[in-house]
Amino acid sequence: MEVANRYVTLKTYIEGAPEESDFELKTSPLALLLDPASDEMIVKNLYVSIDPYQLNRMKRYSSSQKAGPGLEGITFGEEIKAYGVAKVVTSNNVEFEKGDVVVGFVTWAEYSKIRRNGVIRKLDPLGFPLSYHVGLFGYSGLAAYAGFFEICKPKQGEKVFVSAASGSVGNLVGQYAKLLGCYVVGCAGSKQKVELLKEKLGFDDAFNYKEETDLISTLKRYFPNGIDIYFDNVGAEMLEAAVANMNTYGRVAVCGAISEYTDPGKRAAPNMSDVIYKRIKIQGFLAWDYMGISEDFISTTSDNLRSGKMHPLEDISNGVESIPSAFVGLFRGDNIGKRMVKITEE
Amino acid sequence: MEVANRYVTLKTYIEGAPEESDFELKTSPLALLLDPASDEMIVKNLYVSIDPYQLNRMKRYSSSQKAGPGLEGITFGEEIKAYGVAKVVTSNNVEFEKGDVVVGFVTWAEYSKIRRNGVIRKLDPLGFPLSYHVGLFGYSGLAAYAGFFEICKPKQGEKVFVSAASGSVGNLVGQYAKLLGCYVVGCAGSKQKVELLKEKLGFDDAFNYKEETDLISTLKRYFPNGIDIYFDNVGAEMLEAAVANMNTYGRVAVCGAISEYTDPGKRAAPNMSDVIYKRIKIQGFLAWDYMGISEDFISTTSDNLRSGKMHPLEDISNGVESIPSAFVGLFRGDNIGKRMVKITEE
Repeated sequence: MEVANRYVTLKTYIEGAPEESDFELKTSPLALLLDPASDEMIVKNLYVSIDPYQLNRMKRYSSSQKAGPGLEGITFGEEIKAYGVAKVVTSNNVEFEKGDVVVGFVTWAEYSKIRRNGVIRKLDPLGFPLSYHVGLFGYSGLAAYAGFFEICKPKQGEKVFVSAASGSVGNLVGQYAKLLGCYVVGCAGSKQKVELLKEKLGFDDAFNYKEETDLISTLKRYFPNGIDIYFDNVGAEMLEAAVANMNTYGRVAVCGAISEYTDPGKRAAPNMSDVIYKRIKIQGFLAWDYMGISEDFISTTSDNLRSGKMHPLEDISNGVESIPSAFVGLFRGDNIGKRMVKITEE
Repeated sequence: MEVANRYVTLKTYIEGAPEESDFELKTSPLALLLDPASDEMIVKNLYVSIDPYQLNRMKRYSSSQKAGPGLEGITFGEEIKAYGVAKVVTSNNVEFEKGDVVVGFVTWAEYSKIRRNGVIRKLDPLGFPLSYHVGLFGYSGLAAYAGFFEICKPKQGEKVFVSAASGSVGNLVGQYAKLLGCYVVGCAGSKQKVELLKEKLGFDDAFNYKEETDLISTLKRYFPNGIDIYFDNVGAEMLEAAVANMNTYGRVAVCGAISEYTDPGKRAAPNMSDVIYKRIKIQGFLAWDYMGISEDFISTTSDNLRSGKMHPLEDISNGVESIPSAFVGLFRGDNIGKRMVKITEE
């Protein structure tokens, strides 16, 4: 048996903001038969994750491409790896059988052939929709949880600033921080997002950074007593302004730098005198270093979701053909919450 | 009894590099008599420390001035606090008596009146020259020890880069790192300093940054396998270049940013993608937060000095009148090792 598998590929290196024309939707025949000597399997993708970090894989060169497996530069024409939830169609891998629902690294495609072990595991949905396992319980959630709790070591009552606060990671950081009893302000790029942060997610305050001209003054207004923790998803001027407004022993978890990804000349130039005299820690991290706290992360998060203390924030488009526009839109700030593409009904 | 006390004061705010004309050597009569109701004492200064951080106290405004007692902006005409070693001349403080040798915060003066407790303690010279207690066993030494061991958490065999490596702190960081079995490269601003680092202090290599045009390439040459630890005393371009050359899980201890102190527009703009993907930690610190490890620091350092495994590097000028030129010279890189002024013979 054979299917016509549609998948997204890269046509050209991307150095600035991505455009839909940088991608191509291809169709290739895929035999649903496996070499009996292999331990391959074929999965039918249900949801695939759309993440900003992928842009760094699409550049001609980025130091990020050396950071580990899954972060290498993308070759033109190849299938693009992405986190997702899928159903096993056929498997030579003894650990999986047809019909298993799995989560892990698949591709931006309708079907993916999984060649290696260890990148996919069976999914226990824990009673939640499958989409939750793409973002909330996936790397976005783990990045929020690990970055906030492990890097920032927050204490009740501390003052927390989150950028890209309605994004896949930021919205969760704010929610975790509120649950701990912190004072939380987020920034986002539209009035609608700002309202959502305050009204749906319980942020103490929020602002639209596009309406501000002097971010140092803006943050001073929202944090008259200073910032203890800055969860950074954007880099550049916002990081500078946060450092300028930080309190002694302030901590910055650097999860992303989306404003820098599309502009190689854009940089954050925080005042090092502030860093020294205020003993500020600026720490970059990747969620996958924190697999060791997965159990704690999953149990805390699922409890809070069940009791209604946390709210999912998802942004789902439909069909493999929507992947390029979903991805491109990330860098215009189109998404509200975790962006993913639903490839097919379960 | 009364003495003519000579002391150095500030005449004007300093915004760029300091000049000798920014200071004034004043003489005032000082009665060697104390109000019996006070717990004051008068000390005769033997050595006073000359430190770059003082420049931040001499600016009209610097965020550093809010960082704690002893870091406030300096008022024109007042005596300027500085670390030093002194001998008690007269004391109403029951903890001290005439003839005691003490260490702590005195002033850039021949005599200092000490008004508060807790800033001065009796000195046990441990068999070492008194000057060692100004730098090696003072805050310079503690900054090196705490910054390297506590912030950087070094492991044997790691690759360590130190800037301002012949300075008061840098030379000690390099020596501690060599003793631990690290590979150590330092940068400094003259051929003489570079030779000294390699030949006297045992650095594996060293270079004159003034002869380099592309610091990223320079560091790549000296660290073909990357930098694990960067001990930063200078900030700006050197910090950027170090981050670009760092290995995964690299650590930057930000002890000083001397190249930025004299130029408010100068900033380090490290690539945040490097910080994220390489999980780099950039941590500012002040030595005084690490008084808790003083005992360990003093015992390790004195053992190494006695056994000849560490070498003092001191730069001593003579007489209170030499303070302005000694201070100004710090920012031209005139000093080799810990700069201090010997005010008088013991």
